[in-house]
Amino acid sequence: MIIVMKPDHLAEDLNRVVTRLEELGLKAHLSAGEQRTIVGAIGDERVLRDIPLESLAGVEAVVPILKPYKLASREFKPENTVIRVNGAGTEIGGRHIQVIAGPCAVESREVLEEIAGTLHPLDVRFLRGGAFKPRTSPYSFQGWGEKGLKYLAGVREKTGMLVVTELMDPRDTVLLCKYADIIQIGTRNMQNFRLLTEVGNIDKPVILKRGLCATIKEFLMSAEYIMAQGNDKVILCERGVRTFETETRNTLDLSAVPLLKQLTHLPVIIDPSHAVGRADLVPAMARAAVAAGADGLMVEVHVRPEEALSDGPQSLRPNAFAAMMEECRRVAEAVGRTM
Amino acid sequence: MIIVMKPDHLAEDLNRVVTRLEELGLKAHLSAGEQRTIVGAIGDERVLRDIPLESLAGVEAVVPILKPYKLASREFKPENTVIRVNGAGTEIGGRHIQVIAGPCAVESREVLEEIAGTLHPLDVRFLRGGAFKPRTSPYSFQGWGEKGLKYLAGVREKTGMLVVTELMDPRDTVLLCKYADIIQIGTRNMQNFRLLTEVGNIDKPVILKRGLCATIKEFLMSAEYIMAQGNDKVILCERGVRTFETETRNTLDLSAVPLLKQLTHLPVIIDPSHAVGRADLVPAMARAAVAAGADGLMVEVHVRPEEALSDGPQSLRPNAFAAMMEECRRVAEAVGRTM
Amino acid sequence: MIIVMKPDHLAEDLNRVVTRLEELGLKAHLSAGEQRTIVGAIGDERVLRDIPLESLAGVEAVVPILKPYKLASREFKPENTVIRVNGAGTEIGGRHIQVIAGPCAVESREVLEEIAGTLHPLDVRFLRGGAFKPRTSPYSFQGWGEKGLKYLAGVREKTGMLVVTELMDPRDTVLLCKYADIIQIGTRNMQNFRLLTEVGNIDKPVILKRGLCATIKEFLMSAEYIMAQGNDKVILCERGVRTFETETRNTLDLSAVPLLKQLTHLPVIIDPSHAVGRADLVPAMARAAVAAGADGLMVEVHVRPEEALSDGPQSLRPNAFAAMMEECRRVAEAVGRTM
Amino acid sequence: MIIVMKPDHLAEDLNRVVTRLEELGLKAHLSAGEQRTIVGAIGDERVLRDIPLESLAGVEAVVPILKPYKLASREFKPENTVIRVNGAGTEIGGRHIQVIAGPCAVESREVLEEIAGTLHPLDVRFLRGGAFKPRTSPYSFQGWGEKGLKYLAGVREKTGMLVVTELMDPRDTVLLCKYADIIQIGTRNMQNFRLLTEVGNIDKPVILKRGLCATIKEFLMSAEYIMAQGNDKVILCERGVRTFETETRNTLDLSAVPLLKQLTHLPVIIDPSHAVGRADLVPAMARAAVAAGADGLMVEVHVRPEEALSDGPQSLRPNAFAAMMEECRRVAEAVGRTM
Repeated sequence: MIIVMKPDHLAEDLNRVVTRLEELGLKAHLSAGEQRTIVGAIGDERVLRDIPLESLAGVEAVVPILKPYKLASREFKPENTVIRVNGAGTEIGGRHIQVIAGPCAVESREVLEEIAGTLHPLDVRFLRGGAFKPRTSPYSFQGWGEKGLKYLAGVREKTGMLVVTELMDPRDTVLLCKYADIIQIGTRNMQNFRLLTEVGNIDKPVILKRGLCATIKEFLMSAEYIMAQGNDKVILCERGVRTFETETRNTLDLSAVPLLKQLTHLPVIIDPSHAVGRADLVPAMARAAVAAGADGLMVEVHVRPEEALSDGPQSLRPNAFAAMMEECRRVAEAVGRTM
Repeated sequence: MIIVMKPDHLAEDLNRVVTRLEELGLKAHLSAGEQRTIVGAIGDERVLRDIPLESLAGVEAVVPILKPYKLASREFKPENTVIRVNGAGTEIGGRHIQVIAGPCAVESREVLEEIAGTLHPLDVRFLRGGAFKPRTSPYSFQGWGEKGLKYLAGVREKTGMLVVTELMDPRDTVLLCKYADIIQIGTRNMQNFRLLTEVGNIDKPVILKRGLCATIKEFLMSAEYIMAQGNDKVILCERGVRTFETETRNTLDLSAVPLLKQLTHLPVIIDPSHAVGRADLVPAMARAAVAAGADGLMVEVHVRPEEALSDGPQSLRPNAFAAMMEECRRVAEAVGRTM
Repeated sequence: MIIVMKPDHLAEDLNRVVTRLEELGLKAHLSAGEQRTIVGAIGDERVLRDIPLESLAGVEAVVPILKPYKLASREFKPENTVIRVNGAGTEIGGRHIQVIAGPCAVESREVLEEIAGTLHPLDVRFLRGGAFKPRTSPYSFQGWGEKGLKYLAGVREKTGMLVVTELMDPRDTVLLCKYADIIQIGTRNMQNFRLLTEVGNIDKPVILKRGLCATIKEFLMSAEYIMAQGNDKVILCERGVRTFETETRNTLDLSAVPLLKQLTHLPVIIDPSHAVGRADLVPAMARAAVAAGADGLMVEVHVRPEEALSDGPQSLRPNAFAAMMEECRRVAEAVGRTM
Repeated sequence: MIIVMKPDHLAEDLNRVVTRLEELGLKAHLSAGEQRTIVGAIGDERVLRDIPLESLAGVEAVVPILKPYKLASREFKPENTVIRVNGAGTEIGGRHIQVIAGPCAVESREVLEEIAGTLHPLDVRFLRGGAFKPRTSPYSFQGWGEKGLKYLAGVREKTGMLVVTELMDPRDTVLLCKYADIIQIGTRNMQNFRLLTEVGNIDKPVILKRGLCATIKEFLMSAEYIMAQGNDKVILCERGVRTFETETRNTLDLSAVPLLKQLTHLPVIIDPSHAVGRADLVPAMARAAVAAGADGLMVEVHVRPEEALSDGPQSLRPNAFAAMMEECRRVAEAVGRTM
């Protein structure tokens, strides 16, 4: 950490900074420039995380040098993390790009089975579907709860597809773990720290969706929350950030893929459906995600989007999804991967 | 709701839209322009909230006309809501501008009492302090939990100051309600819908903080969530939104004050401390908030910011806070209010 | 255009709106719903563009139905525009994805030739390089002006590579047209309407870069400015928008590619270099751009980035660029194009 | 400037950084920590502005310590700049808060005189009005040019009100200087560096409006551009930045007032009209601006907003403006100023 002193700081201000660093077990390295004096803190600057050095008299700015996350960082673990969800063929983070598809919400057993029936023949190994739905309106359909989870498990039994579903409330953890193969933490809960702590204590892979306006650093800090509890099976999911643009629901930040690949060893997947919010733009963004190096795709598919209880406008119909899969496979091959 | 048809829609597409509206109990009103045919849905368009009309063939766009919230809207309740927290002199939303002040986190009984001792003589009637702290790092101080709540209640006993503290987890609701006079829902939980439902079922005023990138509409929808459960004592708190600017922690959106005053009957308060993230800018923004019409201020104060366990850099020292109070009082008078 | 009346509007307010529309040659179509009365304006709503109907008493909101641009819209011209810059093999917007590469600024004849010497063998047909540089600091290198243009033209003479360079000032138009094959309008000038008008009156293709926080609609309106003067050879370039994220210079909005392809017939290219601002992330985003359907790439290349007078950190070295070209070619093939 | 070396940098990488700094006349100060080695550049780091040290092998990050602007900084000139536009009573930046009001565009002599006739009795000393209008649509009214300037000058002759009008094109500089007392550089031209250079060479005060997504640092760099040419009469105008919020046209960043007051000695004014884009919210934001410490207000006023050729919806009617003036005067007094 670098502490920049104000041009008019007093000698005692500087002493106080140095003393404080030493109290904390760090060495202070002074460097008096022509215009500014700066103090380098030698040692593990993470002990300074919560120390408001900016509030000391004479301090102009405090500049951290190290990343605030550790377990999630590639510096800590240089090789890629490959998460094996359940037996062979279900690794996330390996050479094979996984696809997680299904409706936004589980609506009925019949519709779910109908949708899964279009996905399974395309070698989609993960079925998504919400049993508990975070909805912006209290008057919207909130999901079927355990009944929905049972429908998902029913499809798994028939098809072998693994179940991905969202946890919204720490009180539902045990229930979800009974049915789900992967637990999803949604965008609006990326900084629901209690929920992160909760899934840090289970033995299931977790898909962590990036918050609507979360920085990459905050995203990784939320992964760190989960990992700090002992669960290192975290899959990062970029799903669009909020910008000024209104033609798309959100703005997909695909540069997050190569950037995260540098900063962390965790797998990175892309949800183009929530990012753009319009079915017609999903296939192009899915192809781009594969080309950018994503380890997986999460896509909303519905047999009759015009009847979907949630997110209809962004759901692909089965034929459009099948075409997308074919296109993405060609791009995957072009970048040396399979799908 | 207005449905805009594509220029090349088929007659059967139009029929399907009309039929769908009629099935839902609405009347369809057609208007064939030179370049577009539009269909107006006559009736309560809220039944269309979850119907993905955009997914019907031939539909170009769907334009809602009504606001998606009802209980929170001024159209529904034209007069201002004044929330009486506890006896006379503690109304929020009336002519008197209330101030909620205190440290970010409750650190110790001594420090809390020391801080409260500087606030009480200034006629600050609400003490804030976090017992459960949402922290971006899992390695940061997370709050003292119930012990912190007891310290807060202890100060209330001595001074009569009312206690404002944050709820992070639905499992803590009963505990918090034992000690708190007002429950705060933090920025990162503005769309934690389970938590909103939870506080919708209690009989305590709730301060709902605007999410970092929540639109005004989403902010009001979250208030609607609480109100839809039966708790109409919701206080809206603008505390800065996230923008590209990095010199301040967030960007305080003060235009939210007059805008919310138009759209809703609920009280609106401002937290300048989290908005700017720097103590030196807080007083100017507090004055501006009062001038803009805010019903209250929420300000972080600490006797020794350089030792604060959380948010030190944005905490005012008691003398700066006292000066701010004096300035704000003059502005309050200038706009016909007291403080 | 739809005019939504306030719930409490007076009959005379409604009459005034209707009269106003009729004065402007439009027909008013009334639709009285349960909660709102709306007025549809039948006819070409573009005559309403500058009429502040919102200011009429009793009006709650005005909702445009048509796009504000015409010449640039795909509705106006359904087939793709292919711009032939100079003879065969230089079409932009066709099946072949064009690459425009070179240094940010023209620094010296030697360095420019050295860079071009690495590009030409890779079949890069367009050389970029700034002779007039928009720099955020008045103390930074501002470009060599005409001398730089001559160097660019010198390379064209030797290699046949076509010259792309930026126009910053309407007073330089004649000068630039002497040397350039394509004129670039930079991000910061996307809404420099005088400059747009200026290049609307020349007979050269124009690369129009999206503004840092320009919406897609504004972007197309700026294209419309150029086209309204008679120059329909406009190439749209997405180069990253500004968001809250600070790890990358900007956030590349790749969904702009499929979106623009729907809304307009104009070619769309991507500049990954300015978008991410870091050489290490450029190749992944170049591949993604190709997969998303971009018609071209604009990439900064420098033989010695550490000596570049501008934008060194985002410039690829020749070997990294060559590798990127190879990767992109494979992706181009996978999506049915050449590069 | 601080150069942070990668954890795995080579000794020769470090040597190269040190050598480079020494070549540039700086001293290198090494500080080898446990996790990172950092190099401090001692001397005026501004010589490093254009040196892409990030591109050197082994460098992880480059952290500037000094501000990139100098003439505009308060460090360079601690006392406030007060700009005397024309004789006594027209200072901007002093204790008296100035108001600049008028229509968006000069529409006709009659309307302009009618508007000015409502402003002058309220002691408004500056008349705004556009003769050259930057419009997002090429089909919108573009202003009357010199004829409009003459109308403005005509009002000055009759009333003594000083003229503020916008320069869009460097070719119009001489013309505008004939008529205007203050030249305005619009939001979309904040980084039109040629225009900045142009007004840096004239002897008139310049109102520089903040770009839609310009950071405070970029804003001050644009002021520096003007000042570096010799014109130090720069007035900074915050007028709203672009965010995700759509209920208001832009988001007024009022914290820019106290922040700029710290960083620079230049006067700071606020344009609430463009910020919110709705007349009904303007008065509250004007009061807030005064309370926050603004040196002036720039407000759009029109006698008949529903007929305005530009920006009608955000223009105040004369009676609303008069009420706003009265409210603002009371707030000004409360903060120790006059208006």
